[in-house]
Amino acid sequence: MDKIRIGIVGYGNLGKSAEIGIRQNKDMELAGIFTRRDPLSINTVTEGVPVYHLDASETMKDKIDVMLLCGGSASDIPEQGPMFAGMFNTVDGYDTHANIPDYFNTINNIALKAGKLCIVSSGWDPGMFSINRLYAEAILPEGNTYTFWGKGVSQGHSDAIRRVKGVLDAKQYTIPKENAIETVKRGLMPELTVREKHLRVCFVVAEEGADKKQIEHDIVTMPNYFSDYDTDVHFITQEELDKEHSGLPHGGVVIRYGKTGLYGENSHTIEYKLQLDSNPNFTANVMLAYARAAYRLNIEGVTGAKTVADIAPAYLSLRSGEEIRKDII
Amino acid sequence: MDKIRIGIVGYGNLGKSAEIGIRQNKDMELAGIFTRRDPLSINTVTEGVPVYHLDASETMKDKIDVMLLCGGSASDIPEQGPMFAGMFNTVDGYDTHANIPDYFNTINNIALKAGKLCIVSSGWDPGMFSINRLYAEAILPEGNTYTFWGKGVSQGHSDAIRRVKGVLDAKQYTIPKENAIETVKRGLMPELTVREKHLRVCFVVAEEGADKKQIEHDIVTMPNYFSDYDTDVHFITQEELDKEHSGLPHGGVVIRYGKTGLYGENSHTIEYKLQLDSNPNFTANVMLAYARAAYRLNIEGVTGAKTVADIAPAYLSLRSGEEIRKDII
Repeated sequence: MDKIRIGIVGYGNLGKSAEIGIRQNKDMELAGIFTRRDPLSINTVTEGVPVYHLDASETMKDKIDVMLLCGGSASDIPEQGPMFAGMFNTVDGYDTHANIPDYFNTINNIALKAGKLCIVSSGWDPGMFSINRLYAEAILPEGNTYTFWGKGVSQGHSDAIRRVKGVLDAKQYTIPKENAIETVKRGLMPELTVREKHLRVCFVVAEEGADKKQIEHDIVTMPNYFSDYDTDVHFITQEELDKEHSGLPHGGVVIRYGKTGLYGENSHTIEYKLQLDSNPNFTANVMLAYARAAYRLNIEGVTGAKTVADIAPAYLSLRSGEEIRKDII
Repeated sequence: MDKIRIGIVGYGNLGKSAEIGIRQNKDMELAGIFTRRDPLSINTVTEGVPVYHLDASETMKDKIDVMLLCGGSASDIPEQGPMFAGMFNTVDGYDTHANIPDYFNTINNIALKAGKLCIVSSGWDPGMFSINRLYAEAILPEGNTYTFWGKGVSQGHSDAIRRVKGVLDAKQYTIPKENAIETVKRGLMPELTVREKHLRVCFVVAEEGADKKQIEHDIVTMPNYFSDYDTDVHFITQEELDKEHSGLPHGGVVIRYGKTGLYGENSHTIEYKLQLDSNPNFTANVMLAYARAAYRLNIEGVTGAKTVADIAPAYLSLRSGEEIRKDII
């Protein structure tokens, strides 16, 4: 059987995780890593991986089946998504929620013209959490859906703290409030503010002699990032930060509470929960499963942009239809 | 907009639940209930519902879009599934696991010839649990999947107890063992026997003067049903049974524990958990969501048998693709 030839675009945490994740999928092989940097400057995690400059990709249209776009959603994906959709089947984890409809339409037009299949906004949120929100709402039309994130590291919030005057380094944990989750599970269908749902806990390394009171004030009052939340700030040393907070754990839960029965007398709870030691490892693995789907669907003649909502679960699995019916259903 | 015209075949707990569940789906209407009994003997839960004899269904091929097969898997569905697949799009909850592959092939041949789409083995297990096993395995190829059921009423086991000499009535609860679930979540990837996973608790009403020691012995040693489990037997009065154990709650959890990273150093847990006040209400609601999918796919020209693994999530939702991308992804 020919293996699915995967290309990785962007070699940060997510790209490295994809490189490692491919090894768990025996129907895939890594065809190359594509970077904006000098390819000779890249030391890959595994041995024998060809590294190319991004510009070389257009000469490799027949050597790669699916490109995994592993750059950031702020600036990389909006540029690379449309560029690669004209040349390759792609999978990305574009997660700027407000722009997903426009991004989808842009990719859809390009991919339809190019005859390629591009799965946008995969990963776990958007991604697995999205389809769980969708399934749960379809099954329990009368109810409410809640998404809680964490405990986990938010890289965007950690970066924001690092830009505060007097801060050398920082890590921010998003922590769901247990009492809010309990209220949801008890079926009270609460309207929850952002402050009621999550706590933000910051571990900060300050410059020597910096005004810690001022740093704390600058963090907790920061609009969009912290001002709407209860935020705890802890000052620690760089050594402590490196030792205790070097990982990228994350997770969360989607809960739908709904009612059925002639008088709404029966309550039901659907809960989808993730606990992840490594956010990028897990996200890459989700994207790889969708790369398998993109490859298969495109062979069947399907083109254009798709989201995880448009992909039947069987396309993600290495198992045949017969095996699925025998062993999984 | 034309509503999806749903027919219900079989009017037990599941059929009644479907009748009630349709009212939560504004794009559906109940076209009729079909029964083997005398239609005049049926009192429907809601008013104004036409009730027909099963034999009348063949004259109504153009009046019903999807037939929900709500009979039992032991004898009803194996007979009714093939019969209706030749005339209608259908959704069933066929759950005799060992026979699903053969049943699927039978239905597939008939439905392909008839140009109909038939979704087999929907519900929650098989059904939602199946696709969660599938998704989780595809995302975490290196790991183990565990399914626990309960706390909930097993109707098959309750029926088995009622057949024991000296028993007037009974209810059996399947209860997952918390320490087994904890072992799984801690990542120990245990090999668990059936005895280690679930406890069976029986509430039994005995005939006056019956030998309770003998009844208990007959229950706990019953092959297939109880002999491989730890089983608790409690004798109670009919009044207590009716008052405390009249519901049909159920639920359960699918857990996959897997590892990623170059050396398997990162652990991940995916958990899908259901807590259901009414097993038949919830099962009917899942089947109705798949009825929407069957209707839409057949309009697109898709025919044959499908399982939940073959259906993209978006087909279950009342929302348009645009709405899904804007509000759910």
